Amino acid sequence: MAVNLKTPNPADLLPVPGVRLGVAQAGIRKANHYDLTVIELSPGSRVAGVFTRNRFCAAPVTVCRKHLQNGNIRALVINTGNANAGTGEQGLSDTRATCKALAGILGIDADQVLPFSTGVILEPLPMERLLAGLPHAVADLRTDSWFDAAHAIMTTDTLAKAVSEQIALGGKTITITGMSKGAGMIRPNMATMLGFIACDAAISQSLLEAITLEATDASFNSITVDGDTSTNDSFIVIATGQAGNAEIIDAASDEARALAHAITSAAIRLAQSIVRDGEGATKFMSVAVEGGTTREECRLVAYAIAHSPLVKTAFFASDPNLGRILAAIGYAGIDDLDVERLRVWLGNPEEETLVAEHGGRAAGFIEETGARIMKHAELTVRVDLARGQAKATVWTCDLSYDYVKINADYRS
Amino acid sequence: MAVNLKTPNPADLLPVPGVRLGVAQAGIRKANHYDLTVIELSPGSRVAGVFTRNRFCAAPVTVCRKHLQNGNIRALVINTGNANAGTGEQGLSDTRATCKALAGILGIDADQVLPFSTGVILEPLPMERLLAGLPHAVADLRTDSWFDAAHAIMTTDTLAKAVSEQIALGGKTITITGMSKGAGMIRPNMATMLGFIACDAAISQSLLEAITLEATDASFNSITVDGDTSTNDSFIVIATGQAGNAEIIDAASDEARALAHAITSAAIRLAQSIVRDGEGATKFMSVAVEGGTTREECRLVAYAIAHSPLVKTAFFASDPNLGRILAAIGYAGIDDLDVERLRVWLGNPEEETLVAEHGGRAAGFIEETGARIMKHAELTVRVDLARGQAKATVWTCDLSYDYVKINADYRS
Repeated sequence: MAVNLKTPNPADLLPVPGVRLGVAQAGIRKANHYDLTVIELSPGSRVAGVFTRNRFCAAPVTVCRKHLQNGNIRALVINTGNANAGTGEQGLSDTRATCKALAGILGIDADQVLPFSTGVILEPLPMERLLAGLPHAVADLRTDSWFDAAHAIMTTDTLAKAVSEQIALGGKTITITGMSKGAGMIRPNMATMLGFIACDAAISQSLLEAITLEATDASFNSITVDGDTSTNDSFIVIATGQAGNAEIIDAASDEARALAHAITSAAIRLAQSIVRDGEGATKFMSVAVEGGTTREECRLVAYAIAHSPLVKTAFFASDPNLGRILAAIGYAGIDDLDVERLRVWLGNPEEETLVAEHGGRAAGFIEETGARIMKHAELTVRVDLARGQAKATVWTCDLSYDYVKINADYRS
Repeated sequence: MAVNLKTPNPADLLPVPGVRLGVAQAGIRKANHYDLTVIELSPGSRVAGVFTRNRFCAAPVTVCRKHLQNGNIRALVINTGNANAGTGEQGLSDTRATCKALAGILGIDADQVLPFSTGVILEPLPMERLLAGLPHAVADLRTDSWFDAAHAIMTTDTLAKAVSEQIALGGKTITITGMSKGAGMIRPNMATMLGFIACDAAISQSLLEAITLEATDASFNSITVDGDTSTNDSFIVIATGQAGNAEIIDAASDEARALAHAITSAAIRLAQSIVRDGEGATKFMSVAVEGGTTREECRLVAYAIAHSPLVKTAFFASDPNLGRILAAIGYAGIDDLDVERLRVWLGNPEEETLVAEHGGRAAGFIEETGARIMKHAELTVRVDLARGQAKATVWTCDLSYDYVKINADYRS
């Protein structure tokens, strides 16, 4: 089950000048299955990345971090079926060999390649099949392959996740297209979250990195299915500089803000798609906390609600279970929180109702209204901490029988 | 389902000189159900308490904290069926009225009474029925009622939880008897964890408080079912001073260490009983982390494993899912953790096997051994961080279909 949006329309995924994508069936884990993707970037492209903070990071994450420091990235290679995680020295060696092989085909250096892997962990990469697939993926390189690539990077996803839009910037049209994969960072052993967004804007490396961090904070770092963090999570933003705009260098400029907004919007849609496709999800929950003294404390409260198994099972049951939400706010970790002042609303896209104030149930709250709101598949918990101006939003899904079933049945 | 130990034998629960207990059927939520308990303490008894850190703490917790500051506690009153939480000013007023009524019957002051409530939240205490029940509970006061009281404080518990033991201290016999309630801090809206341990030792107030904190840290603060913290959690340690031993005042003395050890052991057994009775529990899991630089970082790792829904569903499925355990260790929050050095063992009371080392699967690990170990209902995850001498253990249970069923079906 899932609370998915629709599959993207291939024609809606606009090519990004300077970016070509190719896919292949390498048979890494299954036959007759697209499991290998190569993305080629034009010379001069700038690339920024954010990776998992898990200390057990996979070999490709280690190599990505190193290659990004050198800059001058010209290609990405993504395999599914095997995460190359928990594979020690052999894993690093395999990842480096993959980069070298692709570099040889493309006529670039190995450290100009960023590698990504997702799938089962603790198993060695089947290098022979992977390397044999690379020429096929390269032969397939086209600018209009985002739809195919979005499918080729899927593992347990039930739906391909991709977005595309154009904005006008300094008299030029900038195209932003992205794709992601992941169904809750969970199913096949912490199944990886991967996100890739490319645009053709010309922008300085440092500003691209700043925008990438800003977009990550508002998107992939604001979702949770079960609080588990993968070993392979990666988010990459590419700017090919082919649009012909004057290079954006000033973070405060209108151009920088417009591009940051567009990239962040795309990242949020891609991140939300992962939650919507969460294992067993029947509800898509937005937890919006406002009135905090800092964004960090708003996130603490939002995550306490979004991680609470009690809140998540109540939402699965369409139960407006106020006590569980209040308790989660109470243990979120704000020591001087005044529970008498805060207010909580439950809502869906059609209506919203105040459910708690003055430390308990709101006087005007009607159970029937709560029950009606909760029947919707898209729900909002809004909290006003009434102690400042900061705010933060986190997205998650409910906790259903199917979550347990999927994760108990899955065999490592 | 639960992984319970046996119901305690009434004769094994030894009276503690200076402590009398009485129960009554007040009909607070259900008729013909013992739901009211009074505990009377002899003059000169010393009492220490530890309470929930949830900012949404219930009215009785607020009043307990205040009355404990005054000292000279002479009685405790515990009702089930209603938690008196999220009830605002009315809740405080109701709790104070309960203390006053019991004080009137016993001929003591209202601030010598500690109140406790557990049950549904956001509903006013049915004061008329509660107050009418008090004289009956007082009339029932006896020294040999621990078994009855352990049953009367149950809510969704499937089994009464109580322990008793005697130790020799300075030529005197000290009796330690305790009881707890709670089935995972969950079922009826964060169902409260309550723990009470009484002994007849003579001990200074400050040392009793120190021992209470030490025992809490090793017991009730080392268990988790789902990471949710109740609004009403309370743990009380009583020392009546009736045993005739010389008052223990030196924290470093043999007597102090022996008493601390006995109280801590009792608290651990009571705390583990709560996890064993966790909703839907089919496995009792001990997560022991050693070799840390601080106890705090060992707890971080232990809780990351114990809270991970992925680890818990894998244990439910008897799946020795190494990747999920390694991932949880990796995101526990130790920034400079060297994953190459740590080792992980899976075990049950009969055998243990090394499953991970050098950042991946242990070379000698045999899947069949792992599968055989996991079939047991009592499981151990042991982690050696190999960076120091500190250690910590956390107890939890697995995450089953029944957890979701119980918590989704329960209506606030």
